[in-house]
Amino acid sequence: MSDRTELALRAKELDAADALAGLRDRFVLDQGVYLDGNSLGALPAHVPDRMRDVLTRQWGELRIRSWDESGWWTAPERIGDRIAPLIGAGPGQVVVGDSTSVNVYKALVAAVRMAGEGRTEILVDATTFPTDGYIANSAARMTGCTLRALTPAEIPAALGPRTAAVLLNHVDYRTGRLHDLPALTAAVHDAGALVVWDLCHSAGALPVGLDAHGVDLAVGCTYKYLNGGPGSPAYLYVRSDLQDRFDSPLPGWNSHAEPFGMNPEYTPVPGARRGRVGTPDILSMLALEAALEVWDGVSVDAVRAKSLTLTDFFLECVAAYTEPGRVECVTPLRHEERGSQVALRCADAGDVMKRLIDRGVVGDFRHPDVLRFGFTPLYVGFADAERAARVLGEVLA
Amino acid sequence: MSDRTELALRAKELDAADALAGLRDRFVLDQGVYLDGNSLGALPAHVPDRMRDVLTRQWGELRIRSWDESGWWTAPERIGDRIAPLIGAGPGQVVVGDSTSVNVYKALVAAVRMAGEGRTEILVDATTFPTDGYIANSAARMTGCTLRALTPAEIPAALGPRTAAVLLNHVDYRTGRLHDLPALTAAVHDAGALVVWDLCHSAGALPVGLDAHGVDLAVGCTYKYLNGGPGSPAYLYVRSDLQDRFDSPLPGWNSHAEPFGMNPEYTPVPGARRGRVGTPDILSMLALEAALEVWDGVSVDAVRAKSLTLTDFFLECVAAYTEPGRVECVTPLRHEERGSQVALRCADAGDVMKRLIDRGVVGDFRHPDVLRFGFTPLYVGFADAERAARVLGEVLA
Repeated sequence: MSDRTELALRAKELDAADALAGLRDRFVLDQGVYLDGNSLGALPAHVPDRMRDVLTRQWGELRIRSWDESGWWTAPERIGDRIAPLIGAGPGQVVVGDSTSVNVYKALVAAVRMAGEGRTEILVDATTFPTDGYIANSAARMTGCTLRALTPAEIPAALGPRTAAVLLNHVDYRTGRLHDLPALTAAVHDAGALVVWDLCHSAGALPVGLDAHGVDLAVGCTYKYLNGGPGSPAYLYVRSDLQDRFDSPLPGWNSHAEPFGMNPEYTPVPGARRGRVGTPDILSMLALEAALEVWDGVSVDAVRAKSLTLTDFFLECVAAYTEPGRVECVTPLRHEERGSQVALRCADAGDVMKRLIDRGVVGDFRHPDVLRFGFTPLYVGFADAERAARVLGEVLA
Repeated sequence: MSDRTELALRAKELDAADALAGLRDRFVLDQGVYLDGNSLGALPAHVPDRMRDVLTRQWGELRIRSWDESGWWTAPERIGDRIAPLIGAGPGQVVVGDSTSVNVYKALVAAVRMAGEGRTEILVDATTFPTDGYIANSAARMTGCTLRALTPAEIPAALGPRTAAVLLNHVDYRTGRLHDLPALTAAVHDAGALVVWDLCHSAGALPVGLDAHGVDLAVGCTYKYLNGGPGSPAYLYVRSDLQDRFDSPLPGWNSHAEPFGMNPEYTPVPGARRGRVGTPDILSMLALEAALEVWDGVSVDAVRAKSLTLTDFFLECVAAYTEPGRVECVTPLRHEERGSQVALRCADAGDVMKRLIDRGVVGDFRHPDVLRFGFTPLYVGFADAERAARVLGEVLA
């Protein structure tokens, strides 16, 4: 009990000192502890009213005129520019639309086409979320490349003059391991190949630094740490100096230089818009745009600092409340190798997660034996972390 | 003036006798005449309240649980089955998601893969909405096929043992010409090839009869006659007996037999779900699902009958109110060749459309000289048609 009193007190102090604590009021939350924001971010409180305007006035009253008057047509690149600073990208390089899978396909095929003659192998992160591997396989098949799946640690030694492109995940969705984006990007470049980074589990949780590290292409979803809503559209980053060579396998009319010219010949538009395909899904897209306002005035560095303190503190509480050996932490303890989630392995993980959810602590279960707890610094506090660890200890006891 | 009195009276009588007239109350409309529902359908009145529930309760309160409890996960195939009867498809063959362009790509690549050895040419409707041609070009390039763009009338003579797949538009977006789906489908099949129909401008306006005519694959958007909202997700039809051979170029995790198994090997799910790719855009998708309720109890045959009477009547009014030769109708007069729009060619079409819109008659302008008027029988009546023609006559005078 002394541990418990001391940790609860520490949590209180940490929350009191947390400069980001007030951001929680920007979200709709309940009495539970929501540690699944790395799967679906919580609802920003102002989004429903904003969507009422989109539905009743923009669609209901202005109808077709909204493509111009409500800025629907330019939403993909405008929202891309809103996401850009969160991933360390200057303007004009990010465009929003389609799903992550579709963007992985665009990026990887385009990367192979840019890699040039004789480069006929794609390397893919074997530990990545499976869709990236499935799509990489299709991209390889359709570009006449071979595909090899390797762990990120094995990638540098596997690079060579045949390597066309490498698809890597910034943070492993299962273990929460953060990969070394600067070093891996440099290694890929040293081999003369292009790198595509999947930022699904890092954007909005930690600094990415796309421009600073010279990343070629990147994709990511917006419904996790960016809180864009269920299945909100993904984004595609193409570095400025590569955009003229970006040759999309999905050259829909939205990427045409004159989309309303109705020209039978395809002439790609310059810039990030070249990553667009068909008509953007405006409702999902404008919910995302509204949701991104919670980031106004928020520094990603501050988010990262809080995230690390939060996950450190959660692990400390888990150690205090749980019998030694009952769970094994599969998330790296070193800060430079940790994303914003904690993954704990335990034998009966599926059942344990059910009981946690019944008690208001919402994480998720990843087959076969992983409990995943996502820490979203915009709305998760230290008392939440202490409570989650305490309930976990009770459930495991 | 006698013409005008007589036509206004006829409009009144036609509206009074119109069994579909009451459906107008299911939509948000204003005092103008909206003849652009073939570009963006009007807002069904109940959609904003439904979306408030999706936002505040399903996302805001249930959050991640909604993937199961609110039926988010099964939305693509459930909504596909809701669209199916509108296009003459039995259940289990239609799946909703992605844009029309992305679905054209899936359908065309899969069709080529099903066509078999030695079939290395794709034929595409040269008069189609340009995106279909751009995407067909990419599909040809990535499958090692040649591509030929021909008018639908030229297709039958061009078919041969090398033809793999043919991409056709059911209704020409510009002229409103309805193509002969049964005859063209039969011709493609006689040549041993597969046909992909684009239903963007026919679904919801006239009977399509996919199953009855043995169509192989079809795609379409949902934001025109289906009123799903701006950029609402498109759909893909794959005929039941072809589904096992449907080999998608976009094999995202949503099309895996065990999407949550996180298996590194891709095993496609059977059925229509095989056309899924990434996480569905739930907000846009559930707005569409709600919007489709306006079809409850509505017969597509009745819609078609009203559409033809409406466009006939509009053309009669245009002839009465407009100086001969001032406009030229590019929409076929024969019913079996007409969709649900009327396209009029006139020299100063861009300016004419601006003035029409200023006077509350909303159609659209298609480069270089076409005025397009879409007639959506669910909410456009005969008085609307008479008024639109009258204002057009005044603007042209």
